[in-house]
Amino acid sequence: MIIILKSGASDQQIDHVIRRVESMGLEAHLSRGTFRTIIGVIGDESQFQPDRFQVLPGVADVIRVLPPYKLASAEAHPQPSVVHVAGVQIGGGNLAMIAGPCAVESAERMESIAAAVRAAGANILRGGAFKPRTSPYSYQGMGEDGLKILRETGDKHGMPIVTEVMDPRRVELVERYADMIQIGARNMQNFVLLTEVGNTKKPVLLKRGMSATIVDLLMSAEYILARGNPNVVLCERGVKGFDTVTRNVFDVAAVPACKNLSHLPIIVDPSHATGRPDLIPACALAGVAAGADGVHIEVHDCPEEALSDGPQALLPEQYAEVAAQIRKMAELFGKKISNLAGSK
Amino acid sequence: MIIILKSGASDQQIDHVIRRVESMGLEAHLSRGTFRTIIGVIGDESQFQPDRFQVLPGVADVIRVLPPYKLASAEAHPQPSVVHVAGVQIGGGNLAMIAGPCAVESAERMESIAAAVRAAGANILRGGAFKPRTSPYSYQGMGEDGLKILRETGDKHGMPIVTEVMDPRRVELVERYADMIQIGARNMQNFVLLTEVGNTKKPVLLKRGMSATIVDLLMSAEYILARGNPNVVLCERGVKGFDTVTRNVFDVAAVPACKNLSHLPIIVDPSHATGRPDLIPACALAGVAAGADGVHIEVHDCPEEALSDGPQALLPEQYAEVAAQIRKMAELFGKKISNLAGSK
Amino acid sequence: MIIILKSGASDQQIDHVIRRVESMGLEAHLSRGTFRTIIGVIGDESQFQPDRFQVLPGVADVIRVLPPYKLASAEAHPQPSVVHVAGVQIGGGNLAMIAGPCAVESAERMESIAAAVRAAGANILRGGAFKPRTSPYSYQGMGEDGLKILRETGDKHGMPIVTEVMDPRRVELVERYADMIQIGARNMQNFVLLTEVGNTKKPVLLKRGMSATIVDLLMSAEYILARGNPNVVLCERGVKGFDTVTRNVFDVAAVPACKNLSHLPIIVDPSHATGRPDLIPACALAGVAAGADGVHIEVHDCPEEALSDGPQALLPEQYAEVAAQIRKMAELFGKKISNLAGSK
Amino acid sequence: MIIILKSGASDQQIDHVIRRVESMGLEAHLSRGTFRTIIGVIGDESQFQPDRFQVLPGVADVIRVLPPYKLASAEAHPQPSVVHVAGVQIGGGNLAMIAGPCAVESAERMESIAAAVRAAGANILRGGAFKPRTSPYSYQGMGEDGLKILRETGDKHGMPIVTEVMDPRRVELVERYADMIQIGARNMQNFVLLTEVGNTKKPVLLKRGMSATIVDLLMSAEYILARGNPNVVLCERGVKGFDTVTRNVFDVAAVPACKNLSHLPIIVDPSHATGRPDLIPACALAGVAAGADGVHIEVHDCPEEALSDGPQALLPEQYAEVAAQIRKMAELFGKKISNLAGSK
Repeated sequence: MIIILKSGASDQQIDHVIRRVESMGLEAHLSRGTFRTIIGVIGDESQFQPDRFQVLPGVADVIRVLPPYKLASAEAHPQPSVVHVAGVQIGGGNLAMIAGPCAVESAERMESIAAAVRAAGANILRGGAFKPRTSPYSYQGMGEDGLKILRETGDKHGMPIVTEVMDPRRVELVERYADMIQIGARNMQNFVLLTEVGNTKKPVLLKRGMSATIVDLLMSAEYILARGNPNVVLCERGVKGFDTVTRNVFDVAAVPACKNLSHLPIIVDPSHATGRPDLIPACALAGVAAGADGVHIEVHDCPEEALSDGPQALLPEQYAEVAAQIRKMAELFGKKISNLAGSK
Repeated sequence: MIIILKSGASDQQIDHVIRRVESMGLEAHLSRGTFRTIIGVIGDESQFQPDRFQVLPGVADVIRVLPPYKLASAEAHPQPSVVHVAGVQIGGGNLAMIAGPCAVESAERMESIAAAVRAAGANILRGGAFKPRTSPYSYQGMGEDGLKILRETGDKHGMPIVTEVMDPRRVELVERYADMIQIGARNMQNFVLLTEVGNTKKPVLLKRGMSATIVDLLMSAEYILARGNPNVVLCERGVKGFDTVTRNVFDVAAVPACKNLSHLPIIVDPSHATGRPDLIPACALAGVAAGADGVHIEVHDCPEEALSDGPQALLPEQYAEVAAQIRKMAELFGKKISNLAGSK
Repeated sequence: MIIILKSGASDQQIDHVIRRVESMGLEAHLSRGTFRTIIGVIGDESQFQPDRFQVLPGVADVIRVLPPYKLASAEAHPQPSVVHVAGVQIGGGNLAMIAGPCAVESAERMESIAAAVRAAGANILRGGAFKPRTSPYSYQGMGEDGLKILRETGDKHGMPIVTEVMDPRRVELVERYADMIQIGARNMQNFVLLTEVGNTKKPVLLKRGMSATIVDLLMSAEYILARGNPNVVLCERGVKGFDTVTRNVFDVAAVPACKNLSHLPIIVDPSHATGRPDLIPACALAGVAAGADGVHIEVHDCPEEALSDGPQALLPEQYAEVAAQIRKMAELFGKKISNLAGSK
Repeated sequence: MIIILKSGASDQQIDHVIRRVESMGLEAHLSRGTFRTIIGVIGDESQFQPDRFQVLPGVADVIRVLPPYKLASAEAHPQPSVVHVAGVQIGGGNLAMIAGPCAVESAERMESIAAAVRAAGANILRGGAFKPRTSPYSYQGMGEDGLKILRETGDKHGMPIVTEVMDPRRVELVERYADMIQIGARNMQNFVLLTEVGNTKKPVLLKRGMSATIVDLLMSAEYILARGNPNVVLCERGVKGFDTVTRNVFDVAAVPACKNLSHLPIIVDPSHATGRPDLIPACALAGVAAGADGVHIEVHDCPEEALSDGPQALLPEQYAEVAAQIRKMAELFGKKISNLAGSK
């Protein structure tokens, strides 16, 4: 941690800062310059609290040198982590191909979509039973009935399932059915929920919030890791931007950036990132080319009847096409895709 | 709702769209132009689901004409609402002066800060017992002990209290102690939590999320209103921006914009909006000048010892100064401040 | 300047960095910590080039301590500057009341608008003769004829005039007619144009670019100051944001932030910041309450006939109302408005 | 164009709007609904001016149906355009591999970098002679001497050259030396400059501004096309965002979005988009995977001596590696790269 003093800081102020540093069991190294004086702070950085120094008289700025996350950092764990989701590996050269409808709507629809995405090359099935909807008047999901349908459909097709949890009181329920628990973008900083899924051992798909920095995302992963659950997969799904052509800005650079900072796998979700079927395939391929450990795509066989987010879903035949291209790119980059249909 | 067809839409596609509209009990009004054909949809707009039409073949765009929120809209309730918080009125010409520390830290500290802000002109006391912290290693609040301290301090000084709830399982607990429940920015789209506070009758202080549009904010208010709780006060506290000089962008135009769209009171929180004490007074005054129904400011008597967000707190004497200026502006604009110290 | 080394930086790398620093005539102060080593760099900061050190092997980060602007900084010039525009003072407690149509459209229209805003309390007349339009098919302005009309109208009403220049080849022409030259938001980083207006002595109204940070704005001011023209007035006119309710985000906190960092006056332009007449008065008052040295508002007496940006103009009677409120606030805050009609 | 009336619009107001529409030679189609009345406007859309109707009493909103750009639109020119730059084709399945230093610094350095990028597979050489620098104190470029060096080096290596112009007075000079003229991000809405390059026939590399929407970018292209120069290549180079890990947000979805809306080729510039060498290769590949017609990368053989933007340049060996991967992806997608070294 580095404390930069204001140009006019008095000796008394500097002494006060140094005494504060030392009173916390840390070492202070003073460096006086013609323009500015700086104090390097050495010691157990886990105790550093920049806020406490920022407010001291004479202090211009306090700069953290080490990242505020530890367990999620690449320094703590130099090898990329591989997260295992009921036989499907994510990370370390293994791609997740997650597909399915936005919401579980009925057993029949789930079955037809699952059969289609399975045949097309998906290795994990998704579907929402509890839906976060902007409007209280929109469809809110089937609840536990949806979980059952998703479980049965996944089992039938030999696919692990991932589904979202929104309520800390429902984590236990969702954990019982799902192979992987999704934390949605709007809940990325729902620390109560993060703590609850951290208390399980289930793999967690942690979606980046719309206004979350990459460091914010890693801090939210840290919440889960700190509770003892190491199975976190990050997901870039678009951040808030000013353009109206796309729903969000697909921040593809977050993929290599996270890989530099962290050992956790990161996948991309071009469905939510763009909100437009005509842009999803290009962005899916962009994500894989950028090094993503998987692709999450919403697929629906009749978007006009979808109860939620129909317009951002691909048709099964569109999904089959992009999945085939992803497999070619995976081959080009030497990536593996476990649990492909017919590969069991 | 207006459906705009693609320039090359076929008659068959147009017919399909019209039949869809009519199958939902709505009327379709076709308007063919040289360049584009549009269909005006008339009927019970509460049933409109643009997504279902957006995906139909031949459809270029679907435009909502009426806002997606109803109970929160100015059309539904042309007079500004006044929310009553244990004797303090907010809205309709009445200013809330909410002040207090970020977190309740101890009875002694709470007492000294409460005494100071009360004397300076605050009429509602704030303090966090459950703190949403970006890092799992940061101070997370005193919990119920904090609620007790806040309650006792508020009672002693004749001030209603407001405090944040983050966990739907704790709404009942917080409701028991607090006069007003705060939903923080990170939980603005925690729909589970919104539903729970909607089930109470307690006034709710709903903070705008960092990437929430004004319509998003009103939709979240709608969640609470739709459960039967009409006592919602909005709060502009800064949105995500690209500049690094301030923590967020204080979107002061949201104040008159919300007042045009909604009858709900809206206050400003320059502490979180700027994150810098040197900018808080100017932004507090800007908010009042823009028509805000109150000002929420964090105050701490020893920021360097604050366990949370010290650097964004004003000192009591700084608060006294800005509160005095706010009172002058209130007078200029003909606003009232109920429950001022000495005015009981 | 502070150089932070990577945790694994070798002694050889550290030596290389130190030699680089010294080869540039600067002093290096090494501070080795348990976690990180940092090098404080002392000397003539005007020669610091962080880029050159950032790329050295073993370097994690390079942090500037002093701001990159000098002439614009508050440190260089602790007293607020007052810019004189043909008798109207801006800054140091003096408010500019700039009003007029977006574009000069005809002598008659200019006359009627000028008479109205003059009577309402404007002290500087604006009007565009060269218009930056997003579309090549939109009205581009009257050119020199517009300048003549603006000059004559200003003279008749005893008002200095401000108008925009977009082309470095036209600076001389515009300088001949105008009392103040406007650099529009889209040209804030048109360094060729900044250099040209810096070569004049005319007061410059420098509008903040839509994606410009506050530091970017001050750097652009520095371009003008560095050429020898000290007469720069900054203008906050909204930055790019994600909401669609307003055209831009009116960053009112930029007003106190600029005042802390710089001695230059700063005014606000709520017309462009919001793009909505119904929000302009509230934002104008917010700007003045935040400490702005003036308000720039577009006024048109028949917005439906305006050739440019009609929808963001106030009607003369709306302007008169907000101008009256601004004067009351000016009185409250002890600000002066020079060259008021009837005050000559 | 569709005019949506306010819910309380009077018959008189509606009549006034209709008369306005008709007075402009357009047809008005009235559609009265239970909730809202809308007017579809038919006729020569090139004459539509939403602003003029937006301000009429009773009007809630005016919506354009056709895009405001014409020559740049995919509707006007359904086949993708191919731009020819002295023998190198861009677009329609042909990739541009543009590489070189940020600034031309000396003949020797230019020669060594050109030789390296040529060998690595670049087919167009870049280098700045006039540099837009945020600070007036930074290196501003070699001017005409730089153009000469760039020309000679390009000729020696059989590479067309691209270089930036900032000053409308210098367009003729730059045109004399360069095969392609670059308009930088900061000048994307410098309409004076766009008009000047539109008056030439030289291919133009038009970089997206940091706060420009995709429509803004296409409107700026329209400025050039409207002057008679059809040779425009768009460039996505990052837009302003809130994260600080990268310099900008690389909006890779802009690539397929532009391809849907326009026939113009679009390339990507991961150097400026990320500002970090460690992220450039991943983003370059992402751009190609998303369908970009080329990649623009800054390369320098000694970043610590670079006079401008050293930290965002790749080393020649890093460029060779990413160029080899791009060629593999080009092969996978069936793209061609003309004028490869050894392929002449």
